[in-house]
Amino acid sequence: MSLQIDILTVLPELLESPFNHSILKRAKEKGLLEIRVHHLRQWAVNEYGQVDDYQYGGGAGMVMMAEPLANAIEALSQDGPFEEIIYLTPDGERFDQRTANRLSLKGKLLLICGHYKGIDQRIRDKYVTREISIGDYVLSGGELAAAILVDAIGRLLPGVLNDETSALFDSFQDNLLAPPVYSRPAEWRGIRVPEILLSGDPRKIEDWRHEQSLQRTRQRRPDLLEGEED
Amino acid sequence: MSLQIDILTVLPELLESPFNHSILKRAKEKGLLEIRVHHLRQWAVNEYGQVDDYQYGGGAGMVMMAEPLANAIEALSQDGPFEEIIYLTPDGERFDQRTANRLSLKGKLLLICGHYKGIDQRIRDKYVTREISIGDYVLSGGELAAAILVDAIGRLLPGVLNDETSALFDSFQDNLLAPPVYSRPAEWRGIRVPEILLSGDPRKIEDWRHEQSLQRTRQRRPDLLEGEED
Repeated sequence: MSLQIDILTVLPELLESPFNHSILKRAKEKGLLEIRVHHLRQWAVNEYGQVDDYQYGGGAGMVMMAEPLANAIEALSQDGPFEEIIYLTPDGERFDQRTANRLSLKGKLLLICGHYKGIDQRIRDKYVTREISIGDYVLSGGELAAAILVDAIGRLLPGVLNDETSALFDSFQDNLLAPPVYSRPAEWRGIRVPEILLSGDPRKIEDWRHEQSLQRTRQRRPDLLEGEED
Repeated sequence: MSLQIDILTVLPELLESPFNHSILKRAKEKGLLEIRVHHLRQWAVNEYGQVDDYQYGGGAGMVMMAEPLANAIEALSQDGPFEEIIYLTPDGERFDQRTANRLSLKGKLLLICGHYKGIDQRIRDKYVTREISIGDYVLSGGELAAAILVDAIGRLLPGVLNDETSALFDSFQDNLLAPPVYSRPAEWRGIRVPEILLSGDPRKIEDWRHEQSLQRTRQRRPDLLEGEED
């Protein structure tokens, strides 16, 4: 079982380095993840490579045209339909760990990176199955948002992470933030690691970590605990 | 006035492409933004380049050690203190457009990218002035989160965007989502652009866009309107 992610962009160069290091590199080498970045200009409407145009009704900012996007989506669907066609946009549903978990179970996804003022609404109406925002802020394009999705999803694919980096104890997997962590030395510039972590008592340590997680979550993100309080 | 952003990472390669294209490239060329990516291994504790170690109390996952981080922060502060030392972590305050606006007014920022289980808590207690999360999901490291911050902040620096891409009408700048956009042709595969956008009446178009923005925000993100309803 593996996941294929196609990405449609006007700036493929921007995505050169993020997928070739660390965990995503390993996922690709193991054949668990295939990432294909496509330059939208292949489907341009004319010999000048045009893929955007002024927006109807006037105003600053270009719009990515319907025709190149539709042709790209149809061409890329020919070796099998996409399970989700995702448009990355600040007005989409907010991406979270639950969505990452769900998308990691799919087999073939398309990510569309917007630019300028966004894409022609008719593509959103006709093709896009899901609109996702990675957060309440505006980026210069959808490419980094696509990279975030690929990273968050890719690391969840079975076999990608080893025990050292297991996702099971991450923040959000159990609706709790992770507890504080410490490494050697036990005393560093006069500040000591909490004694309990040096106690060698696995049960006490587990209890302490859970308590710290709860406390940090209550303090920083009480919304995560709503309806889930111990 | 320009902004200097230093980034501390164990994977500088991952950040090679995101800053060399599009708007960030322009910001750098105009001298408005300086991005300096530093490999944490320069401050390793031994000749093997060690910067991480097992966590106290046991459990899977390495922790980034206090000493290399402290030495890096101190070395990078020598030509002037940082206005904010930001640790990118899923348990931080959630990044949004307001924070992006505020950080774009600063002069010198440090971003620390976590990896593995995170950084030694003592660095967070002693040096970090702000902990920021770009969203409720877990990434394989803080590098892409740093890239998101740099992009969101960089495009707000005065002089970076031209009128074509002006940030003033983006989602979130006025707590409203952006209205739908359309480009040529007026009829595409049987779907017509809303007639009002073809009317040539700027006032009607403006009203329609505002109404669409409000409607979309009410439908998708009513939380943005709380206490701000027209």
